[in-house]
Amino acid sequence: MQVEILTIGDEIITGHIDNTNASYLARQLTALGLDVKWLTAVGDQASDLRAALDLALTRAQVVIATGGLGPTHDDITKKVAAEYFNSSFVFVPEILQKIKAAFEARGRPMPKVNEDQAMVPEKARIIENPVGSAPGFWFEKDGKKCFFLPGVPAEMKAMCEQTVFPLLKSYGQPRREKIIRTIGIPESTLFEQIDNFKNLERLVKIAFLPRSGGVDIRLIATAENEEECERKLNQAVQYLQQKFSKNIYGYDEQELEDVVAQLLFQLKKTVAVAESCTGGLLAHKLTNISGSSDYFERGVVSYSNQAKMDILGVRAETLQKFGAVSEQTAVEMAQGVRKISRTDFGLSTTGIAGPTGGTPEKPVGLVYVGFADAHGAYAKRYHFFKDRLLNKNRAVMAALNILRKELLKLRHNTD
Amino acid sequence: MQVEILTIGDEIITGHIDNTNASYLARQLTALGLDVKWLTAVGDQASDLRAALDLALTRAQVVIATGGLGPTHDDITKKVAAEYFNSSFVFVPEILQKIKAAFEARGRPMPKVNEDQAMVPEKARIIENPVGSAPGFWFEKDGKKCFFLPGVPAEMKAMCEQTVFPLLKSYGQPRREKIIRTIGIPESTLFEQIDNFKNLERLVKIAFLPRSGGVDIRLIATAENEEECERKLNQAVQYLQQKFSKNIYGYDEQELEDVVAQLLFQLKKTVAVAESCTGGLLAHKLTNISGSSDYFERGVVSYSNQAKMDILGVRAETLQKFGAVSEQTAVEMAQGVRKISRTDFGLSTTGIAGPTGGTPEKPVGLVYVGFADAHGAYAKRYHFFKDRLLNKNRAVMAALNILRKELLKLRHNTD
Repeated sequence: MQVEILTIGDEIITGHIDNTNASYLARQLTALGLDVKWLTAVGDQASDLRAALDLALTRAQVVIATGGLGPTHDDITKKVAAEYFNSSFVFVPEILQKIKAAFEARGRPMPKVNEDQAMVPEKARIIENPVGSAPGFWFEKDGKKCFFLPGVPAEMKAMCEQTVFPLLKSYGQPRREKIIRTIGIPESTLFEQIDNFKNLERLVKIAFLPRSGGVDIRLIATAENEEECERKLNQAVQYLQQKFSKNIYGYDEQELEDVVAQLLFQLKKTVAVAESCTGGLLAHKLTNISGSSDYFERGVVSYSNQAKMDILGVRAETLQKFGAVSEQTAVEMAQGVRKISRTDFGLSTTGIAGPTGGTPEKPVGLVYVGFADAHGAYAKRYHFFKDRLLNKNRAVMAALNILRKELLKLRHNTD
Repeated sequence: MQVEILTIGDEIITGHIDNTNASYLARQLTALGLDVKWLTAVGDQASDLRAALDLALTRAQVVIATGGLGPTHDDITKKVAAEYFNSSFVFVPEILQKIKAAFEARGRPMPKVNEDQAMVPEKARIIENPVGSAPGFWFEKDGKKCFFLPGVPAEMKAMCEQTVFPLLKSYGQPRREKIIRTIGIPESTLFEQIDNFKNLERLVKIAFLPRSGGVDIRLIATAENEEECERKLNQAVQYLQQKFSKNIYGYDEQELEDVVAQLLFQLKKTVAVAESCTGGLLAHKLTNISGSSDYFERGVVSYSNQAKMDILGVRAETLQKFGAVSEQTAVEMAQGVRKISRTDFGLSTTGIAGPTGGTPEKPVGLVYVGFADAHGAYAKRYHFFKDRLLNKNRAVMAALNILRKELLKLRHNTD
């Protein structure tokens, strides 16, 4: 069953926001075994929306449209959709009640413009909105289904999970997908190191997807039945696991910090971090996991030399002789934060995030990551690029990867 | 001149990554005064790509396609495009030289698969790639222009800035746009508080764009000439500035942290932060600005009570009597970090980020933000929602907004 995802809104076609709704829908529908073929976006203009609906209903069996169901003047979707499917409107008092109650719960009076949201197309079936005011709706015509959902991501997602996905689930084809996430090896090297690419392609469809700090390998197996999908996918995954064991850190939606968190939970170990160039991003990533207070004790963003000395006990001589961006400082930062927090591990970053502040000896992109445990401490040197945010991110990935490797060693030794 | 942006790649239509290339191109081309009408994405299949080119060249005068120019097996764009425009290939030795040199500079041998990137369609004009290996190219046919660029964002952007945008600039229509960024007021209230919406719409096209922690108001003025655009836009902006002065924190691309950073630079003030529930994200935002070491002294991510007492000097009695998530703890954290870092301001966060860890008295989403300066200290209470990452982000926005307001008071008093 072929699907088109249609995003409606000037904010999308003028690039004011990224179209994360389309990628969410594409990901979820693909996982259900549906064949997402087109992602389309048009602005808040009735004629463009009509043309997009015409086209989508010609080439797809399912259309999922998001956006333009809000209460203000530029929200035209409901009116255009009703006209398109020759439907009048009916007033649904229950919807108005719900909208009023939602505003009341947040201690605010309902603005008058929200009243209109209780008018819905008569020929459509309503999609309840469990987390917001605008209801969705869907039409069926000539065996094709056309869904309309609000553009607010949390509302759209809740409505999909509650109503749309259960409706569409039975139309999916047998299909299994796996993402293998790697770090420390470029896309073309991955490609070249696979001995018999054609053989592997007989089992699965393969794509290399570079992302900041690593490359993902996406595998898709299709077959007559679920068991055969599973078998083909497993065979491909096993081959790649053997080949790239050193570079694989996780699978599917797992982020590097998720993997590190699982290892810390499992081994009951704790960590504290001392950051300079990453400015808090390392602590942020480590605390994005629910329950992180079990392993994360504290972080210090020691931006000034004074903070490095005061809190972490980095020696003035070290800073003077080697500089704040040096192997020695990284080591003392990691040791220092481990000591004051009494954790199993200390992790540190110091570098020149850029875009300014580089010198010939210490260029923009130079980063040291320090690690300390009960047995000692060391630092590794990296040379990234010019972009400040990317460099912060790459340094954090490098630090998390060092911690991951140390945790794996530990797990191996205690097995 | 109507533009279609075409993104090519299975990673897009399966939702593996967000289509940030399309939003970048849409934003930049709209700013040049071009009329971006359609954003389309298709997968790595020759037939789908051909159909998408057919459609785009029917309805648009300019097509900008990205993706599928890499060196591996799933990159089909160059082959399909050459066939589509009836072009053979030529080998360009200079391109091979450049690719080899780029690999050498990074201390790596060039994988053999990259050689193919020096083959380009004969009928196309080459678009140089200043930051990567894959060149782009563009065809002109029946007065329509069709550009092909790599999908790697940094490469695509560099090639647009160097070649594509200069080529297209002269086709833009007079047009002025402004984004007004607000915090602390919902979309429907903004809409209702505008006295004569129809009058305002005579000057500019208006859209309300909710984002995490605030609502943007986007204004677009079009007219016969640049001066008239400017006049209409300014009149609309002035009206909204008067109306919503308390809620407006910035304009266009300015993030809240940019505005705070500019005020700190301007007033030569310094800040230190003590974070619990935001886990480093506040420090990360404050250090995303180049030169932030001028105002950011240090941050402490005091996740454990021990860290709150050890580093920040929060009293054990306070933690015992009121708990870690309390007004009193927030105040002592802000005071404590200001004291040890000798900065002008101390800022703190403590709360229940969720999704677990709430109690009836202290539910998920409860957050206190503390502020301290030479005159005293206080904390404000917020009640956000259930999502951990959104709550971290909302708490950071709230903290930055408190600092912004204090800085504005200070600037007003010293004027």
